[in-house]
Amino acid sequence: MINLMNDYNSPAHPAVIKAIESALGTRYEGYGHDEETETAKRLIQDLIADSHASVHFMSSGTQTNLVAINAFLRPHEAVIAPSSAHINVHEAGAIEAVGHKILAAETHDGKIRPDQIQEIVSAHGNEHMVKPCLVYLSQTTEYGTVYTHEELLALRRVCDASGLLLYIDGARIGYALTSEKCDFTLQDIAGLADTFYIGGTKNGLLFGEALVIVNPLLQTDFLHLMKQAGALTAKGFLLGIQYRAILKDGLYFALAKHANKMASKLSDGLRELGYSFEVDTESNQVFPIVCDDHIESLKQHITFEIWNHLNDTVSSIRLVTTWETTETEIEQVLGIFSANEIV
Amino acid sequence: MINLMNDYNSPAHPAVIKAIESALGTRYEGYGHDEETETAKRLIQDLIADSHASVHFMSSGTQTNLVAINAFLRPHEAVIAPSSAHINVHEAGAIEAVGHKILAAETHDGKIRPDQIQEIVSAHGNEHMVKPCLVYLSQTTEYGTVYTHEELLALRRVCDASGLLLYIDGARIGYALTSEKCDFTLQDIAGLADTFYIGGTKNGLLFGEALVIVNPLLQTDFLHLMKQAGALTAKGFLLGIQYRAILKDGLYFALAKHANKMASKLSDGLRELGYSFEVDTESNQVFPIVCDDHIESLKQHITFEIWNHLNDTVSSIRLVTTWETTETEIEQVLGIFSANEIV
Amino acid sequence: MINLMNDYNSPAHPAVIKAIESALGTRYEGYGHDEETETAKRLIQDLIADSHASVHFMSSGTQTNLVAINAFLRPHEAVIAPSSAHINVHEAGAIEAVGHKILAAETHDGKIRPDQIQEIVSAHGNEHMVKPCLVYLSQTTEYGTVYTHEELLALRRVCDASGLLLYIDGARIGYALTSEKCDFTLQDIAGLADTFYIGGTKNGLLFGEALVIVNPLLQTDFLHLMKQAGALTAKGFLLGIQYRAILKDGLYFALAKHANKMASKLSDGLRELGYSFEVDTESNQVFPIVCDDHIESLKQHITFEIWNHLNDTVSSIRLVTTWETTETEIEQVLGIFSANEIV
Amino acid sequence: MINLMNDYNSPAHPAVIKAIESALGTRYEGYGHDEETETAKRLIQDLIADSHASVHFMSSGTQTNLVAINAFLRPHEAVIAPSSAHINVHEAGAIEAVGHKILAAETHDGKIRPDQIQEIVSAHGNEHMVKPCLVYLSQTTEYGTVYTHEELLALRRVCDASGLLLYIDGARIGYALTSEKCDFTLQDIAGLADTFYIGGTKNGLLFGEALVIVNPLLQTDFLHLMKQAGALTAKGFLLGIQYRAILKDGLYFALAKHANKMASKLSDGLRELGYSFEVDTESNQVFPIVCDDHIESLKQHITFEIWNHLNDTVSSIRLVTTWETTETEIEQVLGIFSANEIV
Repeated sequence: MINLMNDYNSPAHPAVIKAIESALGTRYEGYGHDEETETAKRLIQDLIADSHASVHFMSSGTQTNLVAINAFLRPHEAVIAPSSAHINVHEAGAIEAVGHKILAAETHDGKIRPDQIQEIVSAHGNEHMVKPCLVYLSQTTEYGTVYTHEELLALRRVCDASGLLLYIDGARIGYALTSEKCDFTLQDIAGLADTFYIGGTKNGLLFGEALVIVNPLLQTDFLHLMKQAGALTAKGFLLGIQYRAILKDGLYFALAKHANKMASKLSDGLRELGYSFEVDTESNQVFPIVCDDHIESLKQHITFEIWNHLNDTVSSIRLVTTWETTETEIEQVLGIFSANEIV
Repeated sequence: MINLMNDYNSPAHPAVIKAIESALGTRYEGYGHDEETETAKRLIQDLIADSHASVHFMSSGTQTNLVAINAFLRPHEAVIAPSSAHINVHEAGAIEAVGHKILAAETHDGKIRPDQIQEIVSAHGNEHMVKPCLVYLSQTTEYGTVYTHEELLALRRVCDASGLLLYIDGARIGYALTSEKCDFTLQDIAGLADTFYIGGTKNGLLFGEALVIVNPLLQTDFLHLMKQAGALTAKGFLLGIQYRAILKDGLYFALAKHANKMASKLSDGLRELGYSFEVDTESNQVFPIVCDDHIESLKQHITFEIWNHLNDTVSSIRLVTTWETTETEIEQVLGIFSANEIV
Repeated sequence: MINLMNDYNSPAHPAVIKAIESALGTRYEGYGHDEETETAKRLIQDLIADSHASVHFMSSGTQTNLVAINAFLRPHEAVIAPSSAHINVHEAGAIEAVGHKILAAETHDGKIRPDQIQEIVSAHGNEHMVKPCLVYLSQTTEYGTVYTHEELLALRRVCDASGLLLYIDGARIGYALTSEKCDFTLQDIAGLADTFYIGGTKNGLLFGEALVIVNPLLQTDFLHLMKQAGALTAKGFLLGIQYRAILKDGLYFALAKHANKMASKLSDGLRELGYSFEVDTESNQVFPIVCDDHIESLKQHITFEIWNHLNDTVSSIRLVTTWETTETEIEQVLGIFSANEIV
Repeated sequence: MINLMNDYNSPAHPAVIKAIESALGTRYEGYGHDEETETAKRLIQDLIADSHASVHFMSSGTQTNLVAINAFLRPHEAVIAPSSAHINVHEAGAIEAVGHKILAAETHDGKIRPDQIQEIVSAHGNEHMVKPCLVYLSQTTEYGTVYTHEELLALRRVCDASGLLLYIDGARIGYALTSEKCDFTLQDIAGLADTFYIGGTKNGLLFGEALVIVNPLLQTDFLHLMKQAGALTAKGFLLGIQYRAILKDGLYFALAKHANKMASKLSDGLRELGYSFEVDTESNQVFPIVCDDHIESLKQHITFEIWNHLNDTVSSIRLVTTWETTETEIEQVLGIFSANEIV
């Protein structure tokens, strides 16, 4: 059985485990007030060349999203997001649970466009309606697509014009930065976003997301908000140790790059077999369209998720590669697909 | 420098790290739908001899408290807790943030009494006031004290009489169960509480709290509430692996027992030196009363927390032992204290 | 200037003011525990022939919606509503502010269809998503349209099949019950809905909405939830007095019927003038489509709201009639419209 | 039966009803965007000589408190209040329901002292605890006592020193301003408080509280927050009309002054009869201590509330006077009390 279900299906990269093992015997201060955490924060500040950005480590993406948005917005302020946004669909109403409406813009590739933001802002003008205040986007998107630098600049412009904050969910930002489509740097991201995070859980850590608050107006009392949401890790040093291990020598980017390469190989192979895709493959997620009748037999060999029922007979499925995915596995998967009739 | 600051100052017990290391290479299902988690749940169900209890693993104590209380109570329902309760003082308003008032009963040893609960219930009778619905207590308490079996039975009776749920915060339940004062079993706890948790973070795990929902009426849709609060760990298997490692062969209890023994030795030694205590030592926390003038010099050798300023010249301090604390360290600490004048 | 802006633009029907005047000199118990309120409740229970329904008087529609939905749903439970629903657009995020996601179904006439509900339910199956639990609809809708008895029965069936509560916003239920399209009774509404309310503010009262909780499972502790939201009126008797005045001798229905008749006359006249409508006129709201160039001149004589910009040159506008609208006013309005060129 | 239960037991002062009656036939803009409301706002701005203060009319005290505090505080920010504060006891957890912890200071006369505030601030210093940000006090207090100008100045100083907002619940501010103890003006109040309100419900209006936001930093988007809480009255003009009626020619103060005078007469009479009081009578609430055995017979002639069970045999009761209380009624009440044995 080959597991292409997601990018968080194994404990962690061995270097991460080893780093924790090396820390056995050391005693640390609690709640992130330790030197490992300080070092990891500095590594991130160095990566974005901004020593004034504040960095906070949390445990999960949903947690990071809800703590941050809850910290940044007043109760009547709303979030603009693409309809496929993780916060809109797959976080069990976490943003609404902290009181904020999500104004969703229809999307088919995971991206939101400036004109959609403009339209939502225009439609919300008085006290009877929520006030749009923050744009949420994911890089890579939930469809594995990557916003180009020009697209991000255009989104930033519409945010500036309407007084909106820009929040970039970077659960898979490593995959974006090592995508063949990537024409920007992490420093560019930090220059464009008010806040973003560097996801660890989906790229080799046991767990961990590093939220970077670039906008100084959003930094006040953030630790209180983390604590209140149960997001302040007692053994905060574990996050520091992990991020230090993964950021040192660029391991974080090497892992993501490998996964992208495997996805690309998979995608190319499937296209040669005649498969088409719901969206183009731009990072570590591949969305081939398959006949519903074949899903059962595919599932006997591959673990994956059914994505969208496109019509009565075909669906897109999601195949996810990771730093552990091997060329051999990709070849096996292609072999399995080639044994099926094509849609 | 000897660290007696808290019981979460080092990564984890080596057996826990080793268990995770052994899992490298394996691929797991996400969000706790894996076999390691199933096994760990069964181990806990076996310990309490209740196969109908539901078990949920979360990352931190504050998270566990807020998710559970948010899941169990309607918006107008309030929590009764001792004034020193972790949720009342040290969770940055987490319970209020999910909408519930805490009705605090004054305490000096961390315990709440049945008559205090009765009095609060009697004072809340109509729609202008919140409705007390859940009693929160910690075992051991935030003062390291341990409720006896008889005390717990009396609390249960007052809960039953007034239709209150009983929630036991077990962040340090291992220390309670291996205290010299302990006259109950984990099975007794499960029989008395509607819900309780078995804390891992403060007793040898990297992170982890195992919430046990005994009362079937409280079990519905709990995973939704976890997800909504960002408390559903993507790599849930990490919690399963850790709990399995620590519960196997009673390691969890052995670690706590050792810490209690060290605390006992420390407490006895300090008493011999003439020190008195804010509360009696019943588990792994020791609260000697020291002269404020000596704190600075103690801090040059020992890391600890100042607890309460008892008057203008003396304070209680908190000394916490763990599975890693050694007899040698205790002797060194006693040496340091003996070098100070006594209050 | 003729005011067709809304149906809450004047103090109250004289009979309502007179009833309050008659109460001068009397002293009442507070918070609705008075005889006037009891009598008004009984009048409503009699109207729906259900002495077990609980009735609660509140001050505004938004307040009623948020208190009720907050009382009925757990934090992860979501509301299904048509996209034009008052709670989805014009309540400044009130439902999200109490923690619940609204899952909106696209509509062009204000109505939601059973298949849309079914589709939303099917798409929400696991703990990563909110759990749809309540269907919200307005009768009349925000477009003045009226669900037929058959439509309501079909919606009830899909609610039953999926375990959903049915909540009917009756801010304008008087207009629905006296619409020419009405083929149901208030008793039918009470038989179909778990909860509904009988709106007063928009039909002759100073202020007031009478929430009827038919489903006994939803009645518990409702007063607590009202109080907590600031919705328990100190002088509750004012609501009792008003509802008694308006329900006695069917005044409530007579007022609504008159408004509907005026709307019908207006609608017929506009059609004769060649105007078309965004939706058919079924109650006291009329939505003619006008040329954007003419709006300015219409506004010199009539107060109204621009509803939807349908394309670059035409918009629908909303004309609302009330118990105070006269035939003469309608004729004047038609005169004004006839002086404009038609789209 | 003489009603001394509360100060909201009758519809309204006749001048208020008459003002509404005079408005019949007029059509107004909705949601407070009308001229009556504008005029009433200006009257209040004139009273405090501050044309930059924003004024918002709401329906009830609980509503005003929760909307304001929700608007002013971030989620981790807490309220300091005396233990007897209305928000702490009698609002069913409204402040916690919008997410904020109340840090209560013990009081026996309804007042909070600067040293209590200082102590609470000192005890809250890091991210594990809530952050005290707003002091709530009631003028008059829930015990009818009145803060002197010097007391208010001292409270303001401690607020300034600790960066706290000062919020004055003025549900009964008319009684404070016409108390014999009053040595300040409404303008003084406005100069001291960041926000306060001028209560109408308890002094002659049908309903209504006028929140005055003096601090410009707190004024942003307040209407959104009102709407979101269901506190934006559709027929906002009703509040404007009422406040205009009651503020014109000082009627508001005349009514309160009369009630205070009746309370004073009642208090003096009871003292002459030998009764003592839980607190001194300073406004329209009188708290005599009576024998529990006599309460039943008192209740046959007077409607009142039992306040505190002071010990096993005596309780304080609360007797409240209003603009409608007559000298004859006071004499009758004194007659009834004189027929009882004194404690």
